[in-house]
Amino acid sequence: MILDGKKVSEKILKEVSIRVSKMDNKPHLVVILVGENPASVVYVKNKQKAAEQVGIKSTLISFPNNVEQEILLGKIKELNEDSQVTGILVQLPLPKHIDKNSVISAISPLKDVDGFTIENVGRLACGMKPYFYPATPQGIIMLLDEYNINLEGSNAVVIGRSNIVGKPMIQMLLNRNATVTSCNSFTRDLEEKIKTADIVISAVGKKIVRCKMDNKNSVIIDVGIYRDSNGQITGDVDFDNISESVAYITPVPGGVGPMTIASLMYNASIVY
Amino acid sequence: MILDGKKVSEKILKEVSIRVSKMDNKPHLVVILVGENPASVVYVKNKQKAAEQVGIKSTLISFPNNVEQEILLGKIKELNEDSQVTGILVQLPLPKHIDKNSVISAISPLKDVDGFTIENVGRLACGMKPYFYPATPQGIIMLLDEYNINLEGSNAVVIGRSNIVGKPMIQMLLNRNATVTSCNSFTRDLEEKIKTADIVISAVGKKIVRCKMDNKNSVIIDVGIYRDSNGQITGDVDFDNISESVAYITPVPGGVGPMTIASLMYNASIVY
Repeated sequence: MILDGKKVSEKILKEVSIRVSKMDNKPHLVVILVGENPASVVYVKNKQKAAEQVGIKSTLISFPNNVEQEILLGKIKELNEDSQVTGILVQLPLPKHIDKNSVISAISPLKDVDGFTIENVGRLACGMKPYFYPATPQGIIMLLDEYNINLEGSNAVVIGRSNIVGKPMIQMLLNRNATVTSCNSFTRDLEEKIKTADIVISAVGKKIVRCKMDNKNSVIIDVGIYRDSNGQITGDVDFDNISESVAYITPVPGGVGPMTIASLMYNASIVY
Repeated sequence: MILDGKKVSEKILKEVSIRVSKMDNKPHLVVILVGENPASVVYVKNKQKAAEQVGIKSTLISFPNNVEQEILLGKIKELNEDSQVTGILVQLPLPKHIDKNSVISAISPLKDVDGFTIENVGRLACGMKPYFYPATPQGIIMLLDEYNINLEGSNAVVIGRSNIVGKPMIQMLLNRNATVTSCNSFTRDLEEKIKTADIVISAVGKKIVRCKMDNKNSVIIDVGIYRDSNGQITGDVDFDNISESVAYITPVPGGVGPMTIASLMYNASIVY
């Protein structure tokens, strides 16, 4: 069965849009983009389009690739203090001369719609409620919940340990009482771990989940999205080979991608 | 082979004491104790004894069990601002009327020798260097390093997911490129997971690791320490049954316990 991220994301966007329509002071999301990385430009455009769709005001602030870190930090400070701005997002990646962690953690945790600041990461890792959960793992949980997939006691395998997906995903699965195995490029017997899992969440950006599953009740979540050598958009999972051997699977595109956007808009509609 | 926490901890304490002896301004650790929980009183006494042994000044500040949270927060603020105080530690557990997270995160991250503040937890979870690593997982890593036990690519099973041991242990194992499985009371097939692991770290407080290991090269780390029904000090691991089937194992007492104290003193000797 397909986990239809497109359909579920539309439902969530609709709920967000209804909530926003009732707000006297509309949320205002500021997106900071440094340089002109083509993928980043597309992502930012999609985020702004989604914001418009749900009635959230959004503003793009662009900086040249060679912007000084101090300028970025100054702008973030200004936005933190601006009561008309309710959400701030710095599009990643940042150029190498910028210290990503410093820039991200300069954002007020109360406006950190990506949930990437040290404060929000720390709150999540302490088992406290962060002001914002990171969009992709939160979107995955929303999708699983929509299909009533039980996580408690499940064996979840998370492939990849980025700050954006893998690491917060571990925390959010632990919060749901899953048994979580975090795999990375050093993992031995990855195939064995995948085949026997109840839930596989792959966030690598390579075709890494190829084997048929032993567990017919398994759930496969494909976070990877990239173009293969033929220019086709594809994910981490060999969908055609695996889909018959599982209970639920996300397609690429139309799975985690739209859920991430919907989850981000859900965050952007939260005003502290 | 026994992982001799007693011996290694003495080595570390000696190194700390040499470093402290060369410092013009000696570190000063303040320990805050609320109430008279007998175990806490013992722990605090042991910490102060170890501090004295390595030349770190320590001061105990005791509050009655019914102290108001504001009073605690006020004291912590005062200690944060006191340049003569280099480390602050709030002995856990705290009484139920106190919000533990608020009190702990009131400590300056630069004096948070337990590494429990949101800032230090968040830095660790982001893959940044925290100002202090939590004492128990850091002590375990120190012990493994002393015996040159390689973690990269190993299958590590962590049982228990407390903020004090299990959760930071996951992060520190990920930093060493281990594949980490986090188990909890909802985990199915726990015995199977244990038997096939390369490293088992159990921090539960119950006799939960009982089975012989399939993996003869495995390493067993027992963080549990409590008195059994006969009043004997014991741990999570059925040492007598398992020890013959593994490569390395920590005893209880004399394993993780002294390493935790040494690791805490290592932290207390760091001055920002």
